[in-house]
Order: sequence, then C-alpha cells, then structure tokens
Amino acid sequence: MSTLADTLFAIGAQARLASREMMRASDHTKATALRAMAHALNAQRDTLQAANRLDLEAAEHNGLEPAMLDRLKLSDRALDLMAAGLEQIAAMPDPVGCLSATTVRPNGMQIARMSVPLGVIGIIYESRPNVTIDAAALCLKSGNAAILRGGSEALHSNVALGRIIRQGLQEAGLPEHAVQVIDTADRAAVGLLATMTEHVDVIVPRGGKSLIRRLSEEARVPLIKHLDGNCHIFVDAAADLERAHTVVFNAKTYRYGICGALETLLVHQDVAPDFLPRMGATLTGHGVELRGCERTRALLPQALPATDDDWATEYLGPVLAIRVVEDINVAMAHIARWSSGHTESIVTEDLGAAKRFQREVDSSSVYVNLPTCFADGYEYGLGAEIGISTNRLHARGPVGLEGLTTYKWVLTGDGQTRG
Amino acid sequence: MSTLADTLFAIGAQARLASREMMRASDHTKATALRAMAHALNAQRDTLQAANRLDLEAAEHNGLEPAMLDRLKLSDRALDLMAAGLEQIAAMPDPVGCLSATTVRPNGMQIARMSVPLGVIGIIYESRPNVTIDAAALCLKSGNAAILRGGSEALHSNVALGRIIRQGLQEAGLPEHAVQVIDTADRAAVGLLATMTEHVDVIVPRGGKSLIRRLSEEARVPLIKHLDGNCHIFVDAAADLERAHTVVFNAKTYRYGICGALETLLVHQDVAPDFLPRMGATLTGHGVELRGCERTRALLPQALPATDDDWATEYLGPVLAIRVVEDINVAMAHIARWSSGHTESIVTEDLGAAKRFQREVDSSSVYVNLPTCFADGYEYGLGAEIGISTNRLHARGPVGLEGLTTYKWVLTGDGQTRG
Repeated sequence: MSTLADTLFAIGAQARLASREMMRASDHTKATALRAMAHALNAQRDTLQAANRLDLEAAEHNGLEPAMLDRLKLSDRALDLMAAGLEQIAAMPDPVGCLSATTVRPNGMQIARMSVPLGVIGIIYESRPNVTIDAAALCLKSGNAAILRGGSEALHSNVALGRIIRQGLQEAGLPEHAVQVIDTADRAAVGLLATMTEHVDVIVPRGGKSLIRRLSEEARVPLIKHLDGNCHIFVDAAADLERAHTVVFNAKTYRYGICGALETLLVHQDVAPDFLPRMGATLTGHGVELRGCERTRALLPQALPATDDDWATEYLGPVLAIRVVEDINVAMAHIARWSSGHTESIVTEDLGAAKRFQREVDSSSVYVNLPTCFADGYEYGLGAEIGISTNRLHARGPVGLEGLTTYKWVLTGDGQTRG
Repeated sequence: MSTLADTLFAIGAQARLASREMMRASDHTKATALRAMAHALNAQRDTLQAANRLDLEAAEHNGLEPAMLDRLKLSDRALDLMAAGLEQIAAMPDPVGCLSATTVRPNGMQIARMSVPLGVIGIIYESRPNVTIDAAALCLKSGNAAILRGGSEALHSNVALGRIIRQGLQEAGLPEHAVQVIDTADRAAVGLLATMTEHVDVIVPRGGKSLIRRLSEEARVPLIKHLDGNCHIFVDAAADLERAHTVVFNAKTYRYGICGALETLLVHQDVAPDFLPRMGATLTGHGVELRGCERTRALLPQALPATDDDWATEYLGPVLAIRVVEDINVAMAHIARWSSGHTESIVTEDLGAAKRFQREVDSSSVYVNLPTCFADGYEYGLGAEIGISTNRLHARGPVGLEGLTTYKWVLTGDGQTRG
C-alpha cells in the first residue's frame, strides 16, 4: 500500500514537472508528436495486437461478454480510427494562448484573458483501450500532462499504447512523462489518484455509474463528470405534432445506450389525445416499452403504470416513461424535480414558451425542437469530446479542448501605479 | 449538533427553492430589490447602529484590538458606503442570460451558450459587517441565492442587516429566502455549510488564512478562494530602471496588507548593481525591512540574510525579500517554485522577454511593467469583486459578477434528427 502510494506520488510529481514544459510547447511541436503517434500506431500494429491478444485471452478465460470483448479488441479498423483521430486532433486550432475579453483601462493599461492549460489531468476509464489514445491526444493538444488509468482487463493493450505515445512525445522533443499510463491493476490506484490534489488538477472519469459514484464520494481533486442522463422532452400545447413525432422518435431510438437518450416524455394535456396514440403505437411497434401516468394509460392501454422510480430512472434501454401535464409550469417543475441536469428539450411553435423553457430549465443543455440525443461534442462543433459535464462550475455540457484549458489575466502597462 | 444540522439543512433547502425563482428574476426586479435595500439602510440607521452597539460593547469587553473594533463599526460613513455600493451594483448590466459563442451548425440548428446563475452561494466571512450587504448584493444581482455566515463578533449587526435585505427582497416580490443570514455563533455551522453539496453550489470564504486552510481541508463544496498572495516582480536586464523603481515602490508600499502586495523582488544580475542600491535606499528610507540573497547583501549592506522561509512567506507587512538571478529562466524557475499563483510582474522593455514571461508564468495574473497591487476587480474593470481566486477551475484571478455565473448550452432547431 505504501509502495503504491509512493509510486503514484512519483508519477504525479513527474506529471507536474512535465506539465510545465507542455504549457509552453508550440502547436507545431504538439502536432508533430500527435502525427508521430499516428505513424507509430500503424507501423507497430503487430506488437500492439500481440499485447491486445493477451488481454483478449484473459478476458475470454474470465468469461467476459462478447460485447465487452468487442470493445476491448484492437482490430485493424479500431487502430485505423485511432490514427485518424490523432491526425484530426493534430489539425485542430491550438486552444492555448488565445486572448479574449481584451480591454484598455482608463489609465492605459491593457487587460486580456489568455487561455492556458489546466495542468495535470487524470483520466480514469474502463475497458476500451482506444480511450488511451483519444484522451492522451486531447490532453496533449491542450498543453496538459496526463495520467491515464484504464481498466485492468486492458492493461497489456494500454501499456503497449503508452509506449507508442511516449515514442511520439520523444520524437517531438516533448517530455516523456507528459503522458503516463498507470500499469498496476491495483484498484487502490484510483482512490490515490483522485486525492492527490497537489499533483492532479482535474480528473475526467469515463466509465460506468459505480465508478462515477465512487469518485464523487472519494475524490478531493475536482471532477469533470456526469452521473445520469435522465433526459426529458416536453411536447407543448403549441407543438407541431408531426415534428414532435420525429423528434421524440429520434431522441428515444437513435441509440438507447447514450446519455442523451430520451427517458421521460412530458405531454401537454391539450395535445395528448391527438399526439400520444400515434406516438405510442410507433414506439411500441419499435419494441419500446411504455410506462405512463394514469392519463397516459387512458390513451395508451399498452403502457404499464409509472411510479416515482420511473421518473427517476435513466433506462439506457428500450423503455420510455410518459406523463401528461397540465401546462409548461408543471412540465418544468417535473424536470426540476427529477432531471439529472443533462439535456432537456421542448417541442413548440410558441416563441414565448420556447424562450421561457430555455431560460428557466436548469440543465447543461436546453433545446427547442431538437431531440436530446444531439448532446455530443462533435454535434456541437467542438471537434472532439473528452466527456459531458453536469457540474455547475467550469465546463458544462459537452466538453471539448476548451474545457481542458483555463485562463489567466495578462496585463500590460508602462509603469502605471495605483492609488 | 443534530439540531444545528437540521437547521442548516432547512436553510439549504429553502435557498435551493429560492434560487429557482432568482434564476428567472428580471434585472428590473433585482435592481428594485437592491435600491429598496439602499433606502432601508438609510431609513433604519438608528436600529442598525443600536444592534451594532451590542456587538461593539461585547467586542470591547472581550478586548478586541482598536483596528478590529473599527472594522466592526457601522459608522454613518460605513452605512453611506454600503448604500452607495448597492446603488452601484443595481446599475450594472445583468450578467445573466447573455448569449455567447453562437454558431449555426451545417444542419441548420443554432447553438449558443447562455450565462446562468451558479445557484446557491455560501459566503463565509469574518468581522466586517459590510460584507453582509456587499456579498448579498453581488449574489442577488447575479441571480443566485445566498447563505451568509459572518463572524460571531458581528452577529447582532449581521442579523439586523439581514432584516434590511429581507425587506428589500419582499418589496421587489423576490423570495425572502434568497438571502439568509445564519444567526448562530456555533462554529460547527461552517463545516456543515461547506459539506452540504446537495444545497450549496459554491462557497466563497472571505477571511484569514486559518479559515481558508480549514475550509480547504473540510469542504466538499467547491471553493472560490486564494490562500496566499506571495507576489513577485522580476526586474529584467532590459528594464527601464526608472520605471522599475516606480513599479517596485508602488507594489510594495501602496498597501502592505493586500494580497497583491509585492513580497519578493527578483533582479537580473546585469542591472542589479545599477538598480538595487537606489531601490534599497528608497525602501529602507520608507521603513521597509530588506532580506536578501548573498549577492543582494553585497549591494545592500542593510539587508538581512534571506532563507527559504523568506521566499515562501507572504509578509503582508513592511518587509521585502530580494534575490539577484542569472537570467529570466532562473527568475521564472524561482516563481514556479515559490509563488502562490496569485500575481507576478516583469519590468522590461524587451518584447520577447515580456511575451515569454506572460506566456510561461503560471499565475492567475501576469503583468508587464505594472505593480502587482493592481490585482483587484475594480482595477480590472469588473465593476465589483467577490474575491480573488488562485484555483485552476472556473473563475481565476479577481472574480466579479461573471464569476458567480456559469453557462448552459441552448440549441434551437426545427426538427433536425441525428444519425
């Protein structure tokens, strides 16, 4: 235990030192490193796949499900995508050193904010080894040092990918400790990393709810995270019902397992009789189980009764909770009571209702006439996504490169004095 | 203990409910409340000063120092300043509901970020009762609910000011729980407030180092804070020495007790023989005690020897540590090793040195040719200041109204779908 703590402390101290160098690295140098990694990923395919095979064999031996095995596998296609991702991130504009909010004060001194890296970022993730490359690339591009802690099932793969990353860093003349892969399977490493406030500035957990919940309790380092994506759509009295049908269907069925998937549908009582029977039939025909309030069930006999558990649940599957509400106030009160603050949407043609909903609903993303499944950094034009945050402080909603930076104030004068 | 926890939980729950209403309050309503408070502050001067007298008598009885008594006193002038502050904050532009980063995606959906209140803000402060009005006004203007916990020495004054605030809220039709003053002297209230993550979104501690240190250890709620202001000026080889003299003198002597006061002076060896003797004489003549490295002491015989403790110390008094350095790299390495990340400055006429220093020094404010004592929200043009932050996440440097807001993504479409 004490040895593990010492090891992690040393990793943290090295990351801090490396982050000082990374902060001042030029974009050209960072892009060179990323492209060298893409090249090495292709050139060392055999070595990587041999390491990956060790993980796959152990996983099969341990009876891992086929879907999990698939995620774990470094297939040719997976490696192609990783290399393409590296090239893409290399080509993005440098998020560091940008000036904003520039003003000149009455005494002539110039003031601006300059975007700067956060420092040292810890990434804690599960099974998928592609996160190793993806997260390293985003941290590196944004001038941060990274400490990566993947799942133990992918340990051989991650260590092999860590060598590729190190090679890229060295080729570009960047410090090799700018990205470090923790190579122990000991789960205590997660807790240690999350409490090392002197050496880690933020942690991005990418994994299941038990990981997020555990980190939310243990971490002393700030987290960029969301726990649940209990997303709502409210079909208003003034909705275009054809449009509502399209939006609700897409939000529920685009992919059941994503955090932006629709989980509870709220329908204004004035349009429920027109809207719900057809919507319900479409969803039922698509294999979606419906659970509704009394008034919903009067219109949709196939719906099971909904309880408070249903309002609280992120199904992440082919199930939808439905409630008929008196008006927009009840809809917004339901959202305030049950939402996880991820993404909500209103379908309406009424400008006043749209404005109120967007102003008053307190979630990280609030839509008008759009399916909640758009909650994604690429869809928002961020070019990349490290995760989605339902925090109130710092980055909120889909987090791209900018969310891995902070700012400092830079003031330039010519000898002005105070007082 | 259990009763105190229950009381604080109820205060938190009421604050959360009130914050929902505050989020959608118009700027007109918020300004009306602030102006009503200013009016009540003038109209009820006698009642306020009677309450304040109870605190003053107890403080005298307990042997509080005259400077502390002065801070505690609600003199006519102190009340005038508080009323003027309320009027000034009322007149500022609404920081809530502003759209930024607006784009239109290829599929036609519009994306923007909307500034929104943080939610519930806890303010923990010591003796000065004017913070009660000032902090309440900033939280209210930015659409937040506030829980205020002042020093026990000012309890009667704070409770009386809390009544004024409540009256202003009611006159404007805002929820009375939008600002709550904790009226118990029990110190356990601080720890409870700082761990109530479900009801408090951020805490701004305004007080001495022991308070900040205690909160940094205990708090589960994020803090907007700085601990030390160990600020540096580096006089570069290419400095205009007349300008350097002005800047250093102002940074050290403008006010010894502020967090932006200069604490360590770094001087390039090439200009030290020209610069230090006159600078040292000026400072010594002004009653500033000097502590220097060997090379400094060779030029300034009056300087005492400096130890590592001096590099680490925020004196907040008439003392200055001085070190002669080989070049800008050594200066920046000294800052990276000893700075508290608050404010640093370089005096130079060399554009390359200025750019490097601003880019590479990792503090919340980095200046060129300016004294560090400019670190202040009013000087930056923020119009107000709730505190100064050396955090990396969220607000950094002087924090004004904008630092009490966060953002959400608002997307508007016409039925676009994904996939």
